[in-house]
Amino acid sequence: MQVPAGNLLEKINYPSDLKQFSEDELELVCQQLRQYIIDVVSVNGGHFAASLGVVELTVALQYVLNTPYDQLVWDVGHQAYGHKILTGRRDVFHTNRVYKGISGFPKRGESEYDTFGVGHSSTSISAALGMAVASHYKGEKDRQHVAVIGDGAMTAGLAFEALNHAGIENSNLLVILNDNNMSIDPNVGALKEYLTDITTSRQYNRFRDDIANVLTKLSQVGPDAFKIAKKIEKSIKGTLLKRSNFFEALKFRYFGPIDGHDVKHLTKVLRDLRDIPGPKLLHCITVKGKGYALAEKDQTKWHAPGLFDKITGEIKKTISEKPQPPKYQDVFGHTIIELAEQNPKIMGITPAMPSGCSLNLMMKAMPNRAFDVGIAEQHAVTFSAGLATQGLVPFCNIYSSFMQRAYDQVIHDVAIQKLNVVFCLDRAGIAGADGPTHHGAYDLAYMRCIPNMTVSAPMNEEELRNLMFTAQQENMGPFVIRYPRGNGVMVDWQRPMKAIPVGKGRLVTDGEEVAILTIGTIGNEAVKAITALNTEGYYPAHYDLRFVKPLDEALLHSVFQKFYKVITVEDGCLEGGMGSAVLEFMADKGYSAQVKRLGMPDAIIEHGEQPELWAECGYDANAIAEQVKAFGISKKAHTIAS
Amino acid sequence: MQVPAGNLLEKINYPSDLKQFSEDELELVCQQLRQYIIDVVSVNGGHFAASLGVVELTVALQYVLNTPYDQLVWDVGHQAYGHKILTGRRDVFHTNRVYKGISGFPKRGESEYDTFGVGHSSTSISAALGMAVASHYKGEKDRQHVAVIGDGAMTAGLAFEALNHAGIENSNLLVILNDNNMSIDPNVGALKEYLTDITTSRQYNRFRDDIANVLTKLSQVGPDAFKIAKKIEKSIKGTLLKRSNFFEALKFRYFGPIDGHDVKHLTKVLRDLRDIPGPKLLHCITVKGKGYALAEKDQTKWHAPGLFDKITGEIKKTISEKPQPPKYQDVFGHTIIELAEQNPKIMGITPAMPSGCSLNLMMKAMPNRAFDVGIAEQHAVTFSAGLATQGLVPFCNIYSSFMQRAYDQVIHDVAIQKLNVVFCLDRAGIAGADGPTHHGAYDLAYMRCIPNMTVSAPMNEEELRNLMFTAQQENMGPFVIRYPRGNGVMVDWQRPMKAIPVGKGRLVTDGEEVAILTIGTIGNEAVKAITALNTEGYYPAHYDLRFVKPLDEALLHSVFQKFYKVITVEDGCLEGGMGSAVLEFMADKGYSAQVKRLGMPDAIIEHGEQPELWAECGYDANAIAEQVKAFGISKKAHTIAS
Repeated sequence: MQVPAGNLLEKINYPSDLKQFSEDELELVCQQLRQYIIDVVSVNGGHFAASLGVVELTVALQYVLNTPYDQLVWDVGHQAYGHKILTGRRDVFHTNRVYKGISGFPKRGESEYDTFGVGHSSTSISAALGMAVASHYKGEKDRQHVAVIGDGAMTAGLAFEALNHAGIENSNLLVILNDNNMSIDPNVGALKEYLTDITTSRQYNRFRDDIANVLTKLSQVGPDAFKIAKKIEKSIKGTLLKRSNFFEALKFRYFGPIDGHDVKHLTKVLRDLRDIPGPKLLHCITVKGKGYALAEKDQTKWHAPGLFDKITGEIKKTISEKPQPPKYQDVFGHTIIELAEQNPKIMGITPAMPSGCSLNLMMKAMPNRAFDVGIAEQHAVTFSAGLATQGLVPFCNIYSSFMQRAYDQVIHDVAIQKLNVVFCLDRAGIAGADGPTHHGAYDLAYMRCIPNMTVSAPMNEEELRNLMFTAQQENMGPFVIRYPRGNGVMVDWQRPMKAIPVGKGRLVTDGEEVAILTIGTIGNEAVKAITALNTEGYYPAHYDLRFVKPLDEALLHSVFQKFYKVITVEDGCLEGGMGSAVLEFMADKGYSAQVKRLGMPDAIIEHGEQPELWAECGYDANAIAEQVKAFGISKKAHTIAS
Repeated sequence: MQVPAGNLLEKINYPSDLKQFSEDELELVCQQLRQYIIDVVSVNGGHFAASLGVVELTVALQYVLNTPYDQLVWDVGHQAYGHKILTGRRDVFHTNRVYKGISGFPKRGESEYDTFGVGHSSTSISAALGMAVASHYKGEKDRQHVAVIGDGAMTAGLAFEALNHAGIENSNLLVILNDNNMSIDPNVGALKEYLTDITTSRQYNRFRDDIANVLTKLSQVGPDAFKIAKKIEKSIKGTLLKRSNFFEALKFRYFGPIDGHDVKHLTKVLRDLRDIPGPKLLHCITVKGKGYALAEKDQTKWHAPGLFDKITGEIKKTISEKPQPPKYQDVFGHTIIELAEQNPKIMGITPAMPSGCSLNLMMKAMPNRAFDVGIAEQHAVTFSAGLATQGLVPFCNIYSSFMQRAYDQVIHDVAIQKLNVVFCLDRAGIAGADGPTHHGAYDLAYMRCIPNMTVSAPMNEEELRNLMFTAQQENMGPFVIRYPRGNGVMVDWQRPMKAIPVGKGRLVTDGEEVAILTIGTIGNEAVKAITALNTEGYYPAHYDLRFVKPLDEALLHSVFQKFYKVITVEDGCLEGGMGSAVLEFMADKGYSAQVKRLGMPDAIIEHGEQPELWAECGYDANAIAEQVKAFGISKKAHTIAS
């Protein structure tokens, strides 16, 4: 449906405008807001199904709450597009996730309506509780604090820790459980089963069966048994069942489940809840992708579908005549199956990212050997450690920035015990449009300081396969393989695998005067730089270190014996990263050289396409070439024999 | 009581020996095991009350299980002394926590009965689930997997994540909830309240009241109403109440609560549970410190009381004629109150370490401004971030090694948003007898790579106070202050506070030829080294950097302009630490110098006293002095004017 001219939505610049409408008009506002999201996302891309699922909730919350004084925290933020459109950003919404445009997530610097910056899941209850406790301390009695959190995000330990604390604080906190049975992939775990139980009244039905059994036994006791039992049942349903609810056990008052798409009922319930003090939870049932039939039907695919024809639902793909290099994700997904077919010890683990990291392939092919443990990075790592104690070789695939969630488990449960766990860190380096919360900026620094750890990064698909092959061998100990989001560089990537000696780098291109040391796929930018430089008569050498830990000392000795001008390039933070490891080697071995380190500067890097941000940070091919020339070396007329 | 000669305990070298006794003899074994723990810990020190509380559980588990084939994971490990004594380590138990002696925690390298190395809390369910899933995969149907976890440890998100996953895996997992109402300090939070509810039958009593209310209303219905209702009540108590239990909601079969000090009943229950497949939880009520009256009475004090007279219970203290420098913990505890009295924005947060970090002083003095959030480091940080969004200045005190648990929250919720949260990292550097899980080895490396972060470490008590004063000023952003376990160096420490310019180091001692750069309290070892060196005619200079981030560039320029021989000293890992930051500065600014970095090597450092381990790692006063001399500098006859 096209939104008609003179629509309600375009009259809403801020929530105060929304409040001018009658309750009866809210359904039309919802319809138009939903259509606006479809219109813009279909041509600009971004997250899709999550925001469609909370249109009514968004409108009802902004209608009832007095934002920004009342504080609304969206968990993760995939679902906050409607929120952005209603809070001053309708007309810039088309710049969503674009370089220099608005962020794809709530962001404090962007709007006073964005109370808390998000991106990673399950922070909202803690943050909203902090706000609520602050209000309590300041005596702001009427101020409302609302966290909207999905059932997927509720599986993370952080959310539980927050509930456990909130339950004993007498502050004005409403948690809205946006229960759509989904993470990005279908939600998993016992809590999800439980929520389905109470939503479908399975718990209540079992209770009724219990009563029926008792009744049978009691039939001889007296004539009114049935009637009495019915009354008791009714009374108990209203009190005990509620009181024994999971959230009530955590001292929250539980309300629901209610239909999260009935905007008028939602406004009524939210208004009622405003007057109830203390911690409370409203259980809303929603449908991810609501209102766009294809998205309702395949919610994982439509989480972030890319560009699509909003009428036909056809997702637009770049058509190429030639075969294209695969995504690193797919290389991982296919390769782990190939390895697991040979090595029965291999297991696969992902915390809620099966389709994102392509472990879904193994989950389908070998369901007893691949596990989605929910949004639970900490558990994913310690569970992997438990598997490893039994001689298995778990491949634990976690996005680089999400691995920050499991840092202690990596140190405490894996590294100290020197267990054979392979950590595949997907989305390492600049993550792209997801921005600062998702850049895998720090992993080289935070991993290489851990003893017993091997830290590697492949330069291409073949190297990724070889590193995976290497890591699954006996007694490898903890082994990190980090690789970025997106496509590789090889069309013919399914080559036979071979082991790489741990800590062994390689010479990519021999050269003179300047050595470029790279780690990981950013090495391909160095290749481009050198190709360009060669045409200008500059011939730097290029080494791919492959391992940040252990360093290839033999290679580095040869580099520093030959070169006095060295550039290090990494798609990660400069503080403590690969370049820093090279400087440590130099200091320890007594070398001196001019070393220019290229990588992510000591600043929060905003969102944008990877090449845009590599350029901004000064380590794309151009910047590398500029740096080579900035050393003031001489041009040559000849070509170096390699 | 003294254990009589010819006792049972000395016949038990391994669990197989224990199994020779009759069930009737187990009580005596428990009595003797308890006494042995008292005898040894009173003269050797260590953790005390936790192990006394699980004596019966330990004996019953080893009696019923077929360890080490059956796998037993102790959470945290404070309570595993009885386990160690019964599994081959009775005769070396007196070396517990001593340098080169046995570890104070279960440790895989020490015994095949130690299935999983612990130290940090809440890992046991994940680890045991990993083992159980591995057994399931291998077809080992009868193998048992047991995690013993305290109610305190159950508050951490990791434990919840594990329950959520375990509930849907059909593996042979028994979780024993060792419910003693305590962490090191009294346990807090909604779950603890809930456990008290079900233990004291408060939930059941409320249910009974509901029934009574119904009965009153029903009295006119028929003569048998009372009798029928009683039968229904009884039936429901047995089924519905159990089914609606918190753990049942997570798809565990729940058993209990039972008395955790009745060893015969425990053996019976454990034997019964062995035959029940799938995930199950046994709720045991125990008393921390059981059997030692003083410990039962003051469980926090007797968690790890130090040496004591086992007869009188008098805790032995080093008596000194002269006033002694305070613990850094106490400096923190008193100073935060002093600051909070002046600055109403200051709040205090600790995840379950109020007495350990001395925030208990503020919790007592200002109960509405200081929060123990339970074992929940992640929540502690994001909750602090929430407070900071409202203009408050939270001091979030977390032990350095526990902060690894909240690394993502530091980056994602605090640093990216540049919020004013002060992180006081207690137990930084070598932690001492607690060993590798507790050394605060990595914080300088993992914190200094985060943008927007200030990372500091005081050299003494006065500096700690000044850094705390500095950090609570307006717009300071995220601010780390790290300091070690143990006593400072100043008797007269309660001096007026003043602000330190952020990123400003200081000259401690001027000198010649060699500059020693230190960060934090390890600087006092450099002071000792220089005092000794001066007597030999060596006069190195000493600079206290105070800040690892931002670095004092002016100070470093002056150092590298004057000195070609530089030593860096830090009580932390060498990879990516302070010395590495100094090398980055040199590379960026084009300095060359001989730099020798002293700190924790790239290895797991075992337990021992701080000075023993500083010496082992080569950065105590002696080692620093040796390094100065190793530079081959000249002796002087004169003293440098400072």
